[in-house]
Amino acid sequence: MPFTLEQLTARFGGRIEGDPAREVGGLAPLDQAGPGHLAFLANPKYLPQVETTRAAAVLITEEALAELKGRGDALAERAFVVTPNPYAYFARVAQVFVAAAAPRVSAGIHPSASVDPSARVAETATIGPFVVVEAGAVIGEHVRIDAHVFIGRGTAIGEGSRIYPNVTIYHGCALEARVIVQSGAVIGSDGFGFAPDFTGEGDARTGEWVKIPQVGGVKIGADVEIGANTTIDRGAMADTVIEHDVKIDNLVQIAHNCRIGAYTVIAGCAGIAGSTTIGRHCMIGGAVGIAGHLKIGDFVIVTAKSGVSKSLPKAGMYTSAFPAVDHAEWNRSAALLRNIDKLRDRIKALEANIQSKGAPE
Amino acid sequence: MPFTLEQLTARFGGRIEGDPAREVGGLAPLDQAGPGHLAFLANPKYLPQVETTRAAAVLITEEALAELKGRGDALAERAFVVTPNPYAYFARVAQVFVAAAAPRVSAGIHPSASVDPSARVAETATIGPFVVVEAGAVIGEHVRIDAHVFIGRGTAIGEGSRIYPNVTIYHGCALEARVIVQSGAVIGSDGFGFAPDFTGEGDARTGEWVKIPQVGGVKIGADVEIGANTTIDRGAMADTVIEHDVKIDNLVQIAHNCRIGAYTVIAGCAGIAGSTTIGRHCMIGGAVGIAGHLKIGDFVIVTAKSGVSKSLPKAGMYTSAFPAVDHAEWNRSAALLRNIDKLRDRIKALEANIQSKGAPE
Amino acid sequence: MPFTLEQLTARFGGRIEGDPAREVGGLAPLDQAGPGHLAFLANPKYLPQVETTRAAAVLITEEALAELKGRGDALAERAFVVTPNPYAYFARVAQVFVAAAAPRVSAGIHPSASVDPSARVAETATIGPFVVVEAGAVIGEHVRIDAHVFIGRGTAIGEGSRIYPNVTIYHGCALEARVIVQSGAVIGSDGFGFAPDFTGEGDARTGEWVKIPQVGGVKIGADVEIGANTTIDRGAMADTVIEHDVKIDNLVQIAHNCRIGAYTVIAGCAGIAGSTTIGRHCMIGGAVGIAGHLKIGDFVIVTAKSGVSKSLPKAGMYTSAFPAVDHAEWNRSAALLRNIDKLRDRIKALEANIQSKGAPE
Repeated sequence: MPFTLEQLTARFGGRIEGDPAREVGGLAPLDQAGPGHLAFLANPKYLPQVETTRAAAVLITEEALAELKGRGDALAERAFVVTPNPYAYFARVAQVFVAAAAPRVSAGIHPSASVDPSARVAETATIGPFVVVEAGAVIGEHVRIDAHVFIGRGTAIGEGSRIYPNVTIYHGCALEARVIVQSGAVIGSDGFGFAPDFTGEGDARTGEWVKIPQVGGVKIGADVEIGANTTIDRGAMADTVIEHDVKIDNLVQIAHNCRIGAYTVIAGCAGIAGSTTIGRHCMIGGAVGIAGHLKIGDFVIVTAKSGVSKSLPKAGMYTSAFPAVDHAEWNRSAALLRNIDKLRDRIKALEANIQSKGAPE
Repeated sequence: MPFTLEQLTARFGGRIEGDPAREVGGLAPLDQAGPGHLAFLANPKYLPQVETTRAAAVLITEEALAELKGRGDALAERAFVVTPNPYAYFARVAQVFVAAAAPRVSAGIHPSASVDPSARVAETATIGPFVVVEAGAVIGEHVRIDAHVFIGRGTAIGEGSRIYPNVTIYHGCALEARVIVQSGAVIGSDGFGFAPDFTGEGDARTGEWVKIPQVGGVKIGADVEIGANTTIDRGAMADTVIEHDVKIDNLVQIAHNCRIGAYTVIAGCAGIAGSTTIGRHCMIGGAVGIAGHLKIGDFVIVTAKSGVSKSLPKAGMYTSAFPAVDHAEWNRSAALLRNIDKLRDRIKALEANIQSKGAPE
Repeated sequence: MPFTLEQLTARFGGRIEGDPAREVGGLAPLDQAGPGHLAFLANPKYLPQVETTRAAAVLITEEALAELKGRGDALAERAFVVTPNPYAYFARVAQVFVAAAAPRVSAGIHPSASVDPSARVAETATIGPFVVVEAGAVIGEHVRIDAHVFIGRGTAIGEGSRIYPNVTIYHGCALEARVIVQSGAVIGSDGFGFAPDFTGEGDARTGEWVKIPQVGGVKIGADVEIGANTTIDRGAMADTVIEHDVKIDNLVQIAHNCRIGAYTVIAGCAGIAGSTTIGRHCMIGGAVGIAGHLKIGDFVIVTAKSGVSKSLPKAGMYTSAFPAVDHAEWNRSAALLRNIDKLRDRIKALEANIQSKGAPE
């Protein structure tokens, strides 16, 4: 299914520079593109590749195109689609090509699936083999639920959502439209809540951790993506909330009663402890840990591997991680850090000594 | 199923102050409670809410009630259940309300489940759709095993345990009574053990990592809870052991031949390397890493994000994590830390200089 | 199935010292071995255990045996198999004993499995209950796929591989021979790729994260092992590649377009961000984080909990983690570190003061 550039801009916008009848039948990076490909220039440092690419057409910004022309490059053979955001344009076109290339999946419920009679499954939804849909669940239009997924009682999956194999969504959760959940993710597991009930000290300590029933749910807004093996706990009393357009990577832990603001992205291996609120448009780096009961404002960036133990109400970038260096060198610095109070004391002694000698003559 | 306060105290203990016939039919926080609710005061800072709550009754300590009375508050309309631990009391009552509200699940084996004829499944157990129970496994009384769970050959699940959907428990493991395993958890996977068998240096290095068969099992004591997508490896020769009343959060890794002492809690994203022993009543914070072959004593607290590389035999609180601060400020401190030896040298030079000038006159 | 030492050395090499007809029927550590056991001495510090062990025979190096003899120990009753690498020898023998003890599993497809007619499954392969194998997948000779595994369309599983229960392998992936995948692992999930398409600042910011379709696959070389609940994302355009003989522990995240070099081992809870290349024979410690688009050379060791934010082209050991110490002590050092620029300024002031006083007389 090739597109002419004219068809492309009719659908996705942008201005054509070159032959509008030129066809593109696939996408590729500038340096790997062949004659039928659409390529894109997102980073100015690859400008020279535009001159040498074999791509049929290149997605480009006005500014980059002007610079190319300023260089006096012979662009006669080239065709361009000019757009303020070539990378996003590329992504949207790629989605269409990929969807067209994917095998057709027929709507309907696989005969091996176990769907409770009281669940409502839209006719356009696709339910894969060995899926379990419990009582009262609601599966929206064009939802696709892959093999081995578990949907608990009363849980709602919004239209156009895609749930990959082996995902578990407990009872009483609600996903809005177009949510994507990668394999192995768990949504709605019990939050980690126990009331300590112990008496006595030391070896005489007896008692138990009394489980607090977790009766809140998980609410997930439209256009959220959740990565493989990520876990999102249900709330204790109120819900855990993931607002719309949040993107969460793999192996992320989101504890009970968190609220993650719209458009925020959370990279892999991060963990957010209970009842913490994160604002909108935040970027949480890989393996970041955020303690419980904090408030993170809008537009906060936390760099990878950092730990957050206090609220960060103000927009900005925050860090507490060191980059790895030579092991022996690190150990020397670490030993000095452990004794940094001794350095401070030596400075103090020097200051006292100097002062006792009076001001310099 | 409302309770009168009299019925409540008959079952859970505590002393009634107010009308023993007053009924409670649900639980809620002080500030959200309605007239039929039981609320609780666990934290003295919420004492003012007790004066304004609409709750039918409040769980409270003797001390807090005395303080309320000391304030001269008009408590005539109030009813209290006085208990030394209102939060634990609340949790126990909540468990009963939640269990009563949950849909009845009939005992028995779902027709789609694959249960080996040599497995022993108690008549009161519930086995969900597509569950696999292998040869020789033993499923105790009132156990509930949800959809898509795998129970390997010879594994025993103790009475009253609850295994949520998509859990995998390998062969040769044993869970005692009332263990809860959240979805996606894996128990009994092979430990990470390989014998290096290489010769030669640099590019000439050849050989292989020879897998050490992992023939130990996993033993899990009574009343343990294991979080979603947590992994507990089987032992190499001896067993990996989780003692009773241990609570483990989501995405925690427990390597082969660890032993975790009773009542210890481990927060999300923590990782414990092989053959490490953790004592009783410890609290391991989120994203903590503990190296292998260490001994952690009883009553040890490791704060979130810390790394433990030496044994910690003594009770106490241990830390190695920094809180995130402004990125530019952090980078300045980090650069100075990397060159802290130069600061030390400058101090040394100053000391030498001062000394060569003799003691102050 | 006991072996005589003669049979053992015929199969696994090594030199017998003692009675070649002596039989061993199992393996055990030196201090737990009984009369029918083969034990091994890998660490010289356990040499005294060789003198007291009840094992029928001991795997030992020439050097250790010479030392024993030098001690004048009466070794007449002992039998030894002398080998340069007793631990690897032990592992290889253990594999045979364990395989022999494992219950026979018949080849074939479990009647409950859902295998697309266009998939090719070798006659010697074993497909467990509720397994899904999609169209065009290829399952090699002697592969064993356990319950609830999902194999996406067109994915190839190489001969002798073992896929444990509840593993998900998406479409378009390829595993070579003898790959082991522990339960809950996810291979081929979408990489975390989104093109930002936003305009406006602050509260006025609008737009969306446009998903970049992930059309690369995952290629996994022979003899790789992948731990429980580990995730390996598919590439965006090109493939994510795990070279042969790589060993990956539990709960590890490997992002899209990474390449992990042969023989590298990655411990639990580590995370590697997108497009990073790791060389051969590296050792990545537990909970290490490595940023994206980096190049890590061959023979690099990164110690546990470290964060890598720059390429490490040279072999060596790298670190950025502190060991946990007493909490109050840590907080004092951390406060001084946060103000280390003030210490630096005080040193500067002292230096200026000294200098203004002239050189020492």
